[in-house]
Amino acid sequence: MSLLVVGSIALDTIETPFGRADMVVGGSAVYISAAASYFTAPIRIVGVVGSDFPKSEIEFLESRGIDTAGIQVVKGGKTFHWSGRYHYDLNERDTLETNLNVFEKFDPVLPEAYKKSRYVLLGNIDPVLQRRVIESMEQKPELVICDTMNFWIEGKRDELLRTLKLVDVIIVNDSEARLLSAEPNLVKAAKKIMQMGPRIVIIKKGEHGALLFTGGTVFSAPAFPLEYIYDPTGAGDTFAGGFIGHLARTEDFSDENLRRAVIYGSVMASFSVAKFGIEALKELSDIEIMGRYRDFIDLSRFEE
Amino acid sequence: MSLLVVGSIALDTIETPFGRADMVVGGSAVYISAAASYFTAPIRIVGVVGSDFPKSEIEFLESRGIDTAGIQVVKGGKTFHWSGRYHYDLNERDTLETNLNVFEKFDPVLPEAYKKSRYVLLGNIDPVLQRRVIESMEQKPELVICDTMNFWIEGKRDELLRTLKLVDVIIVNDSEARLLSAEPNLVKAAKKIMQMGPRIVIIKKGEHGALLFTGGTVFSAPAFPLEYIYDPTGAGDTFAGGFIGHLARTEDFSDENLRRAVIYGSVMASFSVAKFGIEALKELSDIEIMGRYRDFIDLSRFEE
Repeated sequence: MSLLVVGSIALDTIETPFGRADMVVGGSAVYISAAASYFTAPIRIVGVVGSDFPKSEIEFLESRGIDTAGIQVVKGGKTFHWSGRYHYDLNERDTLETNLNVFEKFDPVLPEAYKKSRYVLLGNIDPVLQRRVIESMEQKPELVICDTMNFWIEGKRDELLRTLKLVDVIIVNDSEARLLSAEPNLVKAAKKIMQMGPRIVIIKKGEHGALLFTGGTVFSAPAFPLEYIYDPTGAGDTFAGGFIGHLARTEDFSDENLRRAVIYGSVMASFSVAKFGIEALKELSDIEIMGRYRDFIDLSRFEE
Repeated sequence: MSLLVVGSIALDTIETPFGRADMVVGGSAVYISAAASYFTAPIRIVGVVGSDFPKSEIEFLESRGIDTAGIQVVKGGKTFHWSGRYHYDLNERDTLETNLNVFEKFDPVLPEAYKKSRYVLLGNIDPVLQRRVIESMEQKPELVICDTMNFWIEGKRDELLRTLKLVDVIIVNDSEARLLSAEPNLVKAAKKIMQMGPRIVIIKKGEHGALLFTGGTVFSAPAFPLEYIYDPTGAGDTFAGGFIGHLARTEDFSDENLRRAVIYGSVMASFSVAKFGIEALKELSDIEIMGRYRDFIDLSRFEE
């Protein structure tokens, strides 16, 4: 079913101990859409780029069944650029450069057709803009999912709290969950965040997997133990894309199916980090995705 | 079946944000034996204490079916004393005091009856002593398991490598695995450690669970998401005790059963950290242990 994705579209320069990629397409909306495109259609993307953004990348998104009518192109402007260097252990990175460029004045305007999307995934942007998107929907979506980050939790806390009241699912990492809830214990943190609005809380723990909190239950999903990780950029967004993609495909919000969605998110993230940028998300097959899903079963099953 | 446990016996003073326990019994051999005592018998403990060690604690061990003939009591000596303070997030702690006392000259002498034990668990002590224990066995044990720590990995690497050649299972935490293998990626680290001798490698990740590496497979075990953690002291040793306890009870070293053993280790650790010192290990019932095992199934199951 239809999925609206709002977030950043970027040109990234990424250095890791294993290589370097220059000005490759990235940004939360791109990773989310590309990952979700393996599960559901139509996907409608909203973002902003400059006239330097390669046409071939727009064509790639369209080739994945993603509607790009919502991508605003600012003539003469430059696309948001992020440049970072990962350390040897890949859990640490230095941001070398962040040029917001046209993203600085991003105003997510939805094309009419987008306003009836059944699923909405709000990437990590200003919570004021996230709320504006939700409020401009013509009919209440089945599920609104949002991401956020320390910058907004600390800098625009009140706005974020207003937005969270309208959100069904929040996806954050462990440090963001702790900061948002002012609670170091993740079980307690998830409970506190639920009181802010979202009825489902997902806490990502990077190489340690993810926790899914629903009403009364907790699900602990493993991360795939990869021998080679080339580039963690976008792993969290790719996870979110696989998660919402599976839900939008199945339209089943039972605990069982939310767990499957978390595993599909982990599956997509495990592919993404094994190549640079979004490379891995350009060429996956359903067989590979199903195979990796089964690998996750093998990885975590044990018997009574 | 019979299990020999060699390690430290201590009197600990523990401070956490939730309370304080003064001069309570601890040490790797105590946590391991107490946890394993819920699964198998006889357990034979080897360690050293001073004349200050409470007789009541020896009686407690004996009440759990643990043979204490191997506990050497040094007259006029003082028991190994550790004192530490945990931070609010419990993943960090400061050691306030370490008085080795009689443990400094610990020489693990095995009573004759101990030398035919079928299972051997070597707590974190000098690798020279660990090797001496293995070599003084009268018959080859079914399984030799050892723990170690950064202090030995850095300070007595060659001795440790000689000992690892005689070991079937090594249980270490993630930072120890990385240091031992000089490899940040845990999958690669486990492979390298296997080349050092152990055919089974278990990497503990604290609140993130544990990884079990056997020949060709990896198992990712979750940690139990506890809302209240009072004292992480001894969690790793308790894990090891539950793990070997289940194996010694079942004598089945299949992949399936090794996975169950990892979960039983996690079950015991989840109880241990919810009370101070070894308190939780004094009063468990089989029903509680089975119930928590089922909780682990609920926590990690998902369907195709």
